[in-house]
Amino acid sequence: MKRSERLIAMTHYLIEHPHQLVSLPYFTESYQSAKSSISEDLAIISERFQKEGIGRLQTVPGAAGGVKYIPYNSIEKSEAFIDELAYQLQDSERLLPGGYLFMSDLLGDPQTVRNIGRLFATHFAEYDIDVVVTVATKGIPLAYAVAAFLNVPVVIVRRDPKVTEGSTVSINYVSGSSRKIQTMVLPKRSLKQGANVCIIDDFMKAGGTINGMRSLLNEFEANVACIGVLAEAEDEEEDRVVDDYVSLLQINNVDIKNNKIEVHRGNIFF
Amino acid sequence: MKRSERLIAMTHYLIEHPHQLVSLPYFTESYQSAKSSISEDLAIISERFQKEGIGRLQTVPGAAGGVKYIPYNSIEKSEAFIDELAYQLQDSERLLPGGYLFMSDLLGDPQTVRNIGRLFATHFAEYDIDVVVTVATKGIPLAYAVAAFLNVPVVIVRRDPKVTEGSTVSINYVSGSSRKIQTMVLPKRSLKQGANVCIIDDFMKAGGTINGMRSLLNEFEANVACIGVLAEAEDEEEDRVVDDYVSLLQINNVDIKNNKIEVHRGNIFF
Repeated sequence: MKRSERLIAMTHYLIEHPHQLVSLPYFTESYQSAKSSISEDLAIISERFQKEGIGRLQTVPGAAGGVKYIPYNSIEKSEAFIDELAYQLQDSERLLPGGYLFMSDLLGDPQTVRNIGRLFATHFAEYDIDVVVTVATKGIPLAYAVAAFLNVPVVIVRRDPKVTEGSTVSINYVSGSSRKIQTMVLPKRSLKQGANVCIIDDFMKAGGTINGMRSLLNEFEANVACIGVLAEAEDEEEDRVVDDYVSLLQINNVDIKNNKIEVHRGNIFF
Repeated sequence: MKRSERLIAMTHYLIEHPHQLVSLPYFTESYQSAKSSISEDLAIISERFQKEGIGRLQTVPGAAGGVKYIPYNSIEKSEAFIDELAYQLQDSERLLPGGYLFMSDLLGDPQTVRNIGRLFATHFAEYDIDVVVTVATKGIPLAYAVAAFLNVPVVIVRRDPKVTEGSTVSINYVSGSSRKIQTMVLPKRSLKQGANVCIIDDFMKAGGTINGMRSLLNEFEANVACIGVLAEAEDEEEDRVVDDYVSLLQINNVDIKNNKIEVHRGNIFF
């Protein structure tokens, strides 16, 4: 196969298999090409990916070695994307009772969701994550987007145990802001003991939900390696029960009386 | 920029922007290259994509023209993927009370979900879809996967109206198999009037849920252009209230007594 054709096929393959070790023989056999040619191709791809600000190729030497595509977002791209998102969220028409923001349109756009996923995956690339955990329902698309870039499965915590997934483990927890007692469940066979977990959610007020997830994950002896939330309500800072998280956006000064709201960059940039 | 570098950058760009018209000037300016070079690059990419069985480039002529990446799965790839999925689902340990199947592990794998999305998007590529609609919660990842390949937004119907999304439209419907009355809601501002809709769900028994979605979508004067379900329970065929759907898998002869189950290719292959 010609170099030009190999570069197209390999670029596609690597993009569709992030964080996955691909052995050189896989490429030499698939494209019937010499190892030296494949190595040159990979060098060209790695350089181009870095210049485009979309990732890099990591070479693992040795007999069991190969190459891994590590997707990332350059800082400039991340900042531009988040600033645009903040601008869109600042629209006062998004204000809902209780200080919530209407975000379903943005979270319904697969490109936006994929960008958010790429951003978190950039930040959590070195955490050696086994599984991304979220709670139904708004965090689900974000969790899948992060998991797709990290190449790990998603496990979904549910608030109602009616869903048909066999026997479950459940906990009760106190919601941070409303102080209500709520329930969370996870099917027994959904998570291996001792997994290294990344928690992803769309919105954090006081953090009660995330704390609840942490308690539930304790039952599986899982280790919560990192927590990512799309937006945090900055005004709830005093009551916050979670502190080791990464946010892309901060929502400040929600003023329902005057129909105003401010949205800034989250703590990921500081 | 050299051809080899352009091919990598353009392949990445096209893969990340499926079903989106990209003007040639976008590429000539981004890569500071002549129109003739870009046209040659696109021809090479289109040919390679087709040979790899992953899609094709559609050229739109004229001043407002450009090129569109239409992802698809070759029939051989689709059949191999579905047969593998059917094999995995046939494991008797997946049988749950009520004739349900434990599928959370497969639906939790982003690669599997992305493959399912690519398959439906291949089938629905010509339907001129405006939006993918699903119902919380298990259909959500599949809906996003389909929507990502079709480059359209996702709208999620919910069963509980507590979620904070402003004013809503709701309907009551009768679940096909259990004959219970249930509720479905959609925020008023989530869907434009007259949208061309693709409904995606994970599992269909008699089809009551999908029929419910159809009624709800009627309230928005939406047109249901196509319906895709991952798996249908073939044993419910007699009571079925939906007939114009596409399934990837059929679940037959669920025999809870003898702990046996058969999973075959769905009607998409016939």
